[in-house]
Amino acid sequence: MKHYYKLDEWNIIENGFNADKNEISESIFSLGNGNMGQRANFEEDYSGKSLMGNYIAGVYYPDKTRVGWWKNGYPEYFAKVLNSTNWIGISIKIDGLPLDLAKCNVQEFERVLNMKEGYLQRNFKAVLMNGNEVEVQTKRFISMVRGEIGVIKYSIKPLNFKGKLEISPYLDGNVMNSDSNYDETFWDEISKGVKPYDAYVMLKTKKLDFHICTNMTFELTKNGEIIKPLVTLNQSEKYVANSISVNCDKNDEIVIYKYVANTSSRYYEISELIKITRELALKAKKDGFEMLLKEQSEAWHEKWKESDIVIEGDVSAQQGIRFNIFQLNQTYTGDDSRLNIGPKGFTGEKYGGGTYWDTEAYCIPFYLSTSKKRVSKNLLLYRYNQLDKAIENAEKLGFTNGAALYPMVTMNGEECHNEWEITFEEIHRNGAIAYAIYNYVNYTGDKSCLGEFSFEVLIAISRFWAQRITFSASKNKYVILGVTGPNEYENNVNNNWYTNKIACWTMQYTIKVIDYLSKTESKRLSELVVKLNFKDSEITNWKKIIKNMYYPQNKDLGIFLQQDDYMDKEQILVKDLDKKDIPINQNWSWDRILRSCFIKQADVLQGIYLFENEYDVATIKRNFDFYEPRTVHESSLSPCIHTILAAKIGNHAKAYDMYLRASRLDLDNYNNDTKDGCHTTSMAGTWMAVVHGFGGLRVIDNKLILNPFIPEHWCSCSFKIMFRDALLNIKFTKNIIQIQNENYVPVNLLVYGKDYPLNGNDLLEIKIQ
Amino acid sequence: MKHYYKLDEWNIIENGFNADKNEISESIFSLGNGNMGQRANFEEDYSGKSLMGNYIAGVYYPDKTRVGWWKNGYPEYFAKVLNSTNWIGISIKIDGLPLDLAKCNVQEFERVLNMKEGYLQRNFKAVLMNGNEVEVQTKRFISMVRGEIGVIKYSIKPLNFKGKLEISPYLDGNVMNSDSNYDETFWDEISKGVKPYDAYVMLKTKKLDFHICTNMTFELTKNGEIIKPLVTLNQSEKYVANSISVNCDKNDEIVIYKYVANTSSRYYEISELIKITRELALKAKKDGFEMLLKEQSEAWHEKWKESDIVIEGDVSAQQGIRFNIFQLNQTYTGDDSRLNIGPKGFTGEKYGGGTYWDTEAYCIPFYLSTSKKRVSKNLLLYRYNQLDKAIENAEKLGFTNGAALYPMVTMNGEECHNEWEITFEEIHRNGAIAYAIYNYVNYTGDKSCLGEFSFEVLIAISRFWAQRITFSASKNKYVILGVTGPNEYENNVNNNWYTNKIACWTMQYTIKVIDYLSKTESKRLSELVVKLNFKDSEITNWKKIIKNMYYPQNKDLGIFLQQDDYMDKEQILVKDLDKKDIPINQNWSWDRILRSCFIKQADVLQGIYLFENEYDVATIKRNFDFYEPRTVHESSLSPCIHTILAAKIGNHAKAYDMYLRASRLDLDNYNNDTKDGCHTTSMAGTWMAVVHGFGGLRVIDNKLILNPFIPEHWCSCSFKIMFRDALLNIKFTKNIIQIQNENYVPVNLLVYGKDYPLNGNDLLEIKIQ
Repeated sequence: MKHYYKLDEWNIIENGFNADKNEISESIFSLGNGNMGQRANFEEDYSGKSLMGNYIAGVYYPDKTRVGWWKNGYPEYFAKVLNSTNWIGISIKIDGLPLDLAKCNVQEFERVLNMKEGYLQRNFKAVLMNGNEVEVQTKRFISMVRGEIGVIKYSIKPLNFKGKLEISPYLDGNVMNSDSNYDETFWDEISKGVKPYDAYVMLKTKKLDFHICTNMTFELTKNGEIIKPLVTLNQSEKYVANSISVNCDKNDEIVIYKYVANTSSRYYEISELIKITRELALKAKKDGFEMLLKEQSEAWHEKWKESDIVIEGDVSAQQGIRFNIFQLNQTYTGDDSRLNIGPKGFTGEKYGGGTYWDTEAYCIPFYLSTSKKRVSKNLLLYRYNQLDKAIENAEKLGFTNGAALYPMVTMNGEECHNEWEITFEEIHRNGAIAYAIYNYVNYTGDKSCLGEFSFEVLIAISRFWAQRITFSASKNKYVILGVTGPNEYENNVNNNWYTNKIACWTMQYTIKVIDYLSKTESKRLSELVVKLNFKDSEITNWKKIIKNMYYPQNKDLGIFLQQDDYMDKEQILVKDLDKKDIPINQNWSWDRILRSCFIKQADVLQGIYLFENEYDVATIKRNFDFYEPRTVHESSLSPCIHTILAAKIGNHAKAYDMYLRASRLDLDNYNNDTKDGCHTTSMAGTWMAVVHGFGGLRVIDNKLILNPFIPEHWCSCSFKIMFRDALLNIKFTKNIIQIQNENYVPVNLLVYGKDYPLNGNDLLEIKIQ
Repeated sequence: MKHYYKLDEWNIIENGFNADKNEISESIFSLGNGNMGQRANFEEDYSGKSLMGNYIAGVYYPDKTRVGWWKNGYPEYFAKVLNSTNWIGISIKIDGLPLDLAKCNVQEFERVLNMKEGYLQRNFKAVLMNGNEVEVQTKRFISMVRGEIGVIKYSIKPLNFKGKLEISPYLDGNVMNSDSNYDETFWDEISKGVKPYDAYVMLKTKKLDFHICTNMTFELTKNGEIIKPLVTLNQSEKYVANSISVNCDKNDEIVIYKYVANTSSRYYEISELIKITRELALKAKKDGFEMLLKEQSEAWHEKWKESDIVIEGDVSAQQGIRFNIFQLNQTYTGDDSRLNIGPKGFTGEKYGGGTYWDTEAYCIPFYLSTSKKRVSKNLLLYRYNQLDKAIENAEKLGFTNGAALYPMVTMNGEECHNEWEITFEEIHRNGAIAYAIYNYVNYTGDKSCLGEFSFEVLIAISRFWAQRITFSASKNKYVILGVTGPNEYENNVNNNWYTNKIACWTMQYTIKVIDYLSKTESKRLSELVVKLNFKDSEITNWKKIIKNMYYPQNKDLGIFLQQDDYMDKEQILVKDLDKKDIPINQNWSWDRILRSCFIKQADVLQGIYLFENEYDVATIKRNFDFYEPRTVHESSLSPCIHTILAAKIGNHAKAYDMYLRASRLDLDNYNNDTKDGCHTTSMAGTWMAVVHGFGGLRVIDNKLILNPFIPEHWCSCSFKIMFRDALLNIKFTKNIIQIQNENYVPVNLLVYGKDYPLNGNDLLEIKIQ
């Protein structure tokens, strides 16, 4: 495969200016710090194709739902993440002619995302229409240390002329969302101010009254010396700018350092916002670019220490996995339990920036292993805080008694999705939210969340399942009718095996938790029983359902059946499809996809992955060998689970093959949609593919389990994980596994089925036969 | 039940002005002539709630599709019928104060729809805010004889004052559709002209370039004497008016006769349009109101002669059925094979005025029995003319070899519906279109359409079915996966019995037609075989499918099963539902409806109705007794079929009960949605309920079959039908059936299973034991 970006272990590098790919690169080179994010739009004016994007975490807009034929239960509004004030803008005029790469001859263009230190660099030479040639070098970052701060160093040098440079740093709230219904804007100006070297705008969303304030200050040098030219002030609706003229000789280097603070009323009093924002920006300027960059570099060093994966012998894979880890760490830091991880992170506005089950199914395993446990705990709290809305949502659909249905997509707990087959039917998401609680407890060993809050979530979800089932007199079993499983290429099916499985599992786990709490926190349990008006008869009922649940299967093939009647479909394999039909979601009508046996992501395998311990390898293999060849993997979340299971059953070639599909999805624009933003949540899946797949990592009964294997042409693979306060560096080659405990906390390991206690700071070496 | 409109055999009467019900009455009192239609909006200005509606048959607009989440295969545009130039407008000012019923004290208001003669009358007294009292009497009609002509007689009389009347007849193209996406307008002005007593506007649709021209002329009388006051001319964008001042004494009667022609480029050259329209309007004025009204009355007399139903002893039922017949005759005259019957006729814009399978399933039986056969033949031709588009539509969904999928909703042959579960899956509509051909041939005995054009339609539909089936290895049968049946409360089900049945029936009938043509029109058949590239192997394949089709059934209950796995649902009966849950489509979320056993309209019964001859009464009864109690009849098309089958199995009480739900649906605003327009197509179903249900009318082997029974408290019921050029008046009481052949053509009857030849002009009397 030819790669557009240059292969490099620590950097993403674009060589040459390619306007056609600009929107893709804007996604790839995005920066963020969990608090805000910015696509790699240019600082200077650009009249070419560009998707402007600056997003402030948690600031959203409840836009009117767009729907063909309304159905009862649809939400009236859906939240969308908002493009907010453009804070990077620096207009440049050279002898009166704007610098605009769409109208220049661009040479030696290079864009570099330095993932090790967390900054974006851009260099180019541009020949303007009048023949003037300039060299530009920019460096910018969004501080991982100071959540509100973005900094830009913008250097410009006349190469073949002497003339006047006009430099206008600005802030501009006249921004749009590309997914607005009628090209409307979402912001009103509240106030603005512009002084020399200091300007701000404060905006308010037209609904919900989120206030954001943006303040800029800046400094100029000429050939390294600070200069303070006179400033012209400009302002208009939602717009403030300073304009500066500098006369330059050939090869003079003018540098502008722009320091910007972006704050929101989510963290500060509105009355304080202007003042605080200004102080933050001025403080940044005072500390200076180099110091901020040093902080940034150190912060990223810490991040990498806890979450890096090193692959020797495959720079493409190395770059791919680091890019994924980098984006995940830019997106969510776990500091605010009101935030979550949108499918595109801060790299685009698609999917409205909402929270999906991706978080629980794919992201939590990543954050569990690579961050302090408070990060994952905040993700559990996020759902707990939205429990009331999930109960309301279920009530809207006719459920009672505190049953909760978490939304398919949400920003504040309300449903944002409005296609019945997803909104109302893709209810397995509820199970993933319960499973995440189990996952957290199992991985961290920290059961305090159960009594604190998670119990309430489990009860509400179990209550939902207990009402959502139907007793089929004809089967003499409980069934679950009318669902869409994780395989969204089937809609409104009966007895989706995965959904039936996770429904019963939730009730089972909830009963276990009740048992645990009754033994350890009986007082707290009594309080909760009263609060939730919980009855013992509910447990009896759940047990009856668990015992009598119907699971579709095909006994001849020895497999679990994706859903009732799946075997009525014409059984074709993906390999026998005409290549021109792939991807089928771009080439086939929806009904044809639904009628076919083809699977977007195999949900039976997803279930087997979650409940792997219940199945022997032969069962897993039979199911894998049946479903994988029918799976088109047209969900970016699909290949990772298949990697893990292929590894489990020893199909290493398939595991690696699946891994390749995921690891460079965005870098190689595999799905031809990276311009909309990166597939942030599926990046966590790729991490899982390495650690759970190639590493074979599991946690069972408080023991860390490893079963590593290394893909054929890799020399070594190593990853960092945190487990119960231990920090482990796990490296494996074809011949040896080395596990370095980089912390003082001892840990129990089970490698290839054999127990190894590992003391603090010890190194364990295991030779592979 | 309390009726809002006064019960009357021939008239719909509203007594008293009720602004809240005005939009409902605007629908009920609508006028039309097959070529255009007009809601019962007031002539004078009205600032209260009103849905303005003037529709020109066949003039539509391809508006942009509104959709939540796009799916491959969705149409980019959907056609909508357009509200066009307001031609009825007559502004009235009395001593400078506008006459506006929303701002007057309205007394003795009466609105009468005279169905016998086809006009709308309105009388009222209004006390204006200044105390002036006027009496107004209006009469208007849309000519059934002159397709383009609408006429208004508007009389006004000062009752308690002497003063100045300003009368301004106008034409106004500044009209909206209430279902426009962004409140946009759809018309551009092409030209206009205004002279005294003569004005026109010509508009063009913003897309597709339909031109419509409207010309008005008028005449005034004072106390019966023609007057010709001076005229002030007014015009603005898309608007022309004449204004006239008349000084009146108390009790002077001023009458304005407004004659309007509405033409479109669908019938005339654009260059001729202005001239022709003017000539039509002037000719109408020349002939005069009384002559036009006489024509109108005579035309309706002819209509009633062929299609009346008389019910003695139940004025409510009498009024209901006549209203339905009246509306059907106003909607479609069968003169233009490019026109069809929208679900709301000309009474509202809902459903976009498009063509649904309603036409074939419900309307064709009505027109077959009550009009010359060319009327139904034109409805067959409508689909033939759109065959290429239906083939294109199927190709879009992946079908090949000339397979056709007719759209669910259409204006010009292109699909206008965009919800996948309907658009792509409610494919049974294709079967209804084939069945209509059979129905036409069976009823009329006229097989000429087969070779002429219908054969091509049948081949294309059969080809669709042959590709749409799947061979299920697990069932060793052909199955049809992923469909929505006529019961739209199930989506994406497998093996909907009705769909499987009508699919095989279509192929079977097509083979029969091939056989017929090979014997009678072998040369024509050869031509068609070449044209369609038809292969004998297709017949072989169809036969294999027909032989091996899977039909779900429940052997224990002895019933056909609506779809696979229907018996997994919780089996509850409608009678056991909480009343507050009904109608479920307003009270339940969509998923709850889908999961429930409740049925919108029972499609197994629909299938049994179509293929009744194949089943014995015991089978029909078992199915009826199973499905009807589970059916909520929330489709206006549901009760009529149930009436017919209930009659068939001798459940007369149920038959009458079902009939009541349908017959006065709009007059009693049963579904609380009549303000959007009348349920025109379901009115044909009500007619079927009487004639096929109570009358037991069938045609088998060229014989007219009757099995009448009369509801308990009716004295007599009689209906007119045409059959093979005979015109029959069939009247039945509890004791006797009288069949008068009102024509010279003899006919063979089978009444209660006994043969009766009936000669021309003869009367047959059969005593009922």
